[in-house]
Amino acid sequence: MNDKIIDAIRQKVAKEPYARKMGLRLLGLKPGYALVEMDLKDDMANIFDVTHGGAIFSLIDEAFETSCNAHGTVAVALNMTVTFHRSPTKGGVLRAESKEIHRSSKTATYEIKVTEGENILIASCQALAYRKKEKLPFL
Amino acid sequence: MNDKIIDAIRQKVAKEPYARKMGLRLLGLKPGYALVEMDLKDDMANIFDVTHGGAIFSLIDEAFETSCNAHGTVAVALNMTVTFHRSPTKGGVLRAESKEIHRSSKTATYEIKVTEGENILIASCQALAYRKKEKLPFL
Amino acid sequence: MNDKIIDAIRQKVAKEPYARKMGLRLLGLKPGYALVEMDLKDDMANIFDVTHGGAIFSLIDEAFETSCNAHGTVAVALNMTVTFHRSPTKGGVLRAESKEIHRSSKTATYEIKVTEGENILIASCQALAYRKKEKLPFL
Amino acid sequence: MNDKIIDAIRQKVAKEPYARKMGLRLLGLKPGYALVEMDLKDDMANIFDVTHGGAIFSLIDEAFETSCNAHGTVAVALNMTVTFHRSPTKGGVLRAESKEIHRSSKTATYEIKVTEGENILIASCQALAYRKKEKLPFL
Repeated sequence: MNDKIIDAIRQKVAKEPYARKMGLRLLGLKPGYALVEMDLKDDMANIFDVTHGGAIFSLIDEAFETSCNAHGTVAVALNMTVTFHRSPTKGGVLRAESKEIHRSSKTATYEIKVTEGENILIASCQALAYRKKEKLPFL
Repeated sequence: MNDKIIDAIRQKVAKEPYARKMGLRLLGLKPGYALVEMDLKDDMANIFDVTHGGAIFSLIDEAFETSCNAHGTVAVALNMTVTFHRSPTKGGVLRAESKEIHRSSKTATYEIKVTEGENILIASCQALAYRKKEKLPFL
Repeated sequence: MNDKIIDAIRQKVAKEPYARKMGLRLLGLKPGYALVEMDLKDDMANIFDVTHGGAIFSLIDEAFETSCNAHGTVAVALNMTVTFHRSPTKGGVLRAESKEIHRSSKTATYEIKVTEGENILIASCQALAYRKKEKLPFL
Repeated sequence: MNDKIIDAIRQKVAKEPYARKMGLRLLGLKPGYALVEMDLKDDMANIFDVTHGGAIFSLIDEAFETSCNAHGTVAVALNMTVTFHRSPTKGGVLRAESKEIHRSSKTATYEIKVTEGENILIASCQALAYRKKEKLPFL
């Protein structure tokens, strides 16, 4: 059963419009866990010519969304808290790793770390999802 | 002096790569305040065919970034907490309004609300910026 | 019906062990709104001889708890984000005001401000509650 | 040098008014790390007769405060985000463990977990401190 869910999410992400727009690549996925990668492009620069917080958050949210839905039932974001530690290197590659730290029938909580290179911490997120009863609609 | 700062930020945003990528329009700006608008496009859809949290956060972050830098000195995001209330209407228009609720010499705090239509609340954010001493580099 | 709920919560708070321990006074209460007051006492000092964050949060949480339960059904805290703006004056009086900014059948969101004196902002909180179906057990 | 700092904080906590009021015991301390314990007492009950969020947060904040000040310079709380997973057992013992996940010259970030018994997760916190240049005043 797990494999079917994981495969279905992987296929969905491969065709996800926003993942394509941002260049998000789902590298790892299992129930309660995801690893997503993104290349930093010129079109992600803000008014100070560093990576826009929106781009970094997009990467975080993709890892969150996939990790919490990998249990096979629909989970939606309730709350996300992000602390930005440093600006990433221009032209670099970022990874977001989402790990489930708690799950009940109604909610689940994740810690998501964004790193570049040899584990340099760029941003940290604590995220809370609401878990619905219904199965993923695309299974 | 204020007018010069506001004009400089407006010009920077008009050319900001990420603002162009996401279609972010700066409608209102003064020290500690910003109003930014974004059209929801097909390429912002997530795996459930609703707007990706990353797109909504990008709008929030643009309002945050411009409102806290409109004092004329460089401010950087430390922490942002977002609560998602409901998915926005497909093809709709979102607005993010950032209001400063506190400012000291070192930090400043903002409440940012995302709405659509007649003030329907989509997301709420509390955001904390670190205020540097240096003037905006593009003044 | 509202009056009965408000009265029941007021009576519960008057006897609440933790409210007594901290000296929390419920000044105002209606569905989605609460105002709570606390005197700063010597036994609330931390290692720097300023008010402990735990005491300030206790005041915030009392305002949150009462405001979200004043709808008459049980609501429990899911997530609370607090930004501390400044240390309160020693021996002063703090007030926390909780205002509901969004409510659905499942969740509700509040903004809570802690002030002293003539509206000097001490701390700001964004708080998310999960709303159960069951009525308050003490009605 | 480290030992002197750790000893000085331990002595301060042993005499801290709020730590005494709440029964907070500092079990472990080193730069960027703290472990604090608290017995749940009858006077910590809220209107539903479960432990008040303020008591749980007080434990979290003590672990945060001691871990970030154990570097020897004054650190103050900027932002704390707490997710509450479940109510603790009545009459139980709670532990909060604070771990530094990032530190720069100006800020530091901590993950704090509250557990009871055999590692049952009660609450999780992400906390951000501002680091001043000045040494701890009681060294």
